[in-house]
Amino acid sequence: MTQQIRDVVEQYVKLVGSGPTEDIVQLYAPDATVEDPIGTEPRRGHDAIREFYEVIANLDRETELRPDSVRIAGKHAAFMFTLVTKFGDQRFSLAPIDVMEFDDSGKIVRMRAYWSQEDMSSAPD
Amino acid sequence: MTQQIRDVVEQYVKLVGSGPTEDIVQLYAPDATVEDPIGTEPRRGHDAIREFYEVIANLDRETELRPDSVRIAGKHAAFMFTLVTKFGDQRFSLAPIDVMEFDDSGKIVRMRAYWSQEDMSSAPD
Repeated sequence: MTQQIRDVVEQYVKLVGSGPTEDIVQLYAPDATVEDPIGTEPRRGHDAIREFYEVIANLDRETELRPDSVRIAGKHAAFMFTLVTKFGDQRFSLAPIDVMEFDDSGKIVRMRAYWSQEDMSSAPD
Repeated sequence: MTQQIRDVVEQYVKLVGSGPTEDIVQLYAPDATVEDPIGTEPRRGHDAIREFYEVIANLDRETELRPDSVRIAGKHAAFMFTLVTKFGDQRFSLAPIDVMEFDDSGKIVRMRAYWSQEDMSSAPD
C-alpha cells in the first residue's frame, strides 16, 4: 500500500500544478473531505472538492514536491510541497504541509492542509 | 496564539532531545492523546504519555527541528524534525512529520506522528 500511496501523493502534487481539475477530483473518494487550510469548514464530496480546485484551474502555476518530505504510515501520508502562481510579473509561493488519509483502494478520504499567510511569499518573476 | 504555538513546538523538539520527561508531559493537556506513529492505538492522558516518552529518557540522543518546516494554522501545527539516538558506535535517525492540535491555553491536546521504518536510518557514529 505504501508505494500506491506515494504514487497518489506525487500525482496529486503534479496535478495541482497542471490539472486538469477532474483528474485531481478523481484521486478522492466520493465522500472525501478537504480542509484547506486546517481549521476551516471542510468541503465534502466531489462537487465541493471540484469547486475548490477550480479556483486555481486557470492560473499560470507550477508545483514541486519537497524532496524527502513524504512520510507514509499505514493509510496516512504527510508531505510538503510548494505551489507557485504567476500574476503578471509577480510570483506568489505557498508552501503547505498536507496530510492525507486513504481508503483500501488508495483513494484519498481526507485531506487537511497546514499553512497560513506566513507561509506565503511573493517576488518579482 | 501563533507565536505561543511556535514556542511550544520548539520547546517540544528540544525536550524530546534532552528531557526531562516530566517537562514534555507538561506541554500536554491532562486529557491529551498521542498517536505515534499515526494508525496505532492513541495513548490518552498524562500517565500514558509519560510512559511513552520514558522509553527514550535514558538514551543518548539529540533532536533538530527542520528549519522552515513549521506550519501553523489557527490551533494546529505541523513540523518535521530529526531524532538521533546513539547506541554504542551506531547512530539511529528518525525523521517524522508531527502534527499537533492545541487548546486555548496553548497545551497540546492531540499529537499524531507520520513516520514508518522507511524514515529510519542508521550509520556509524
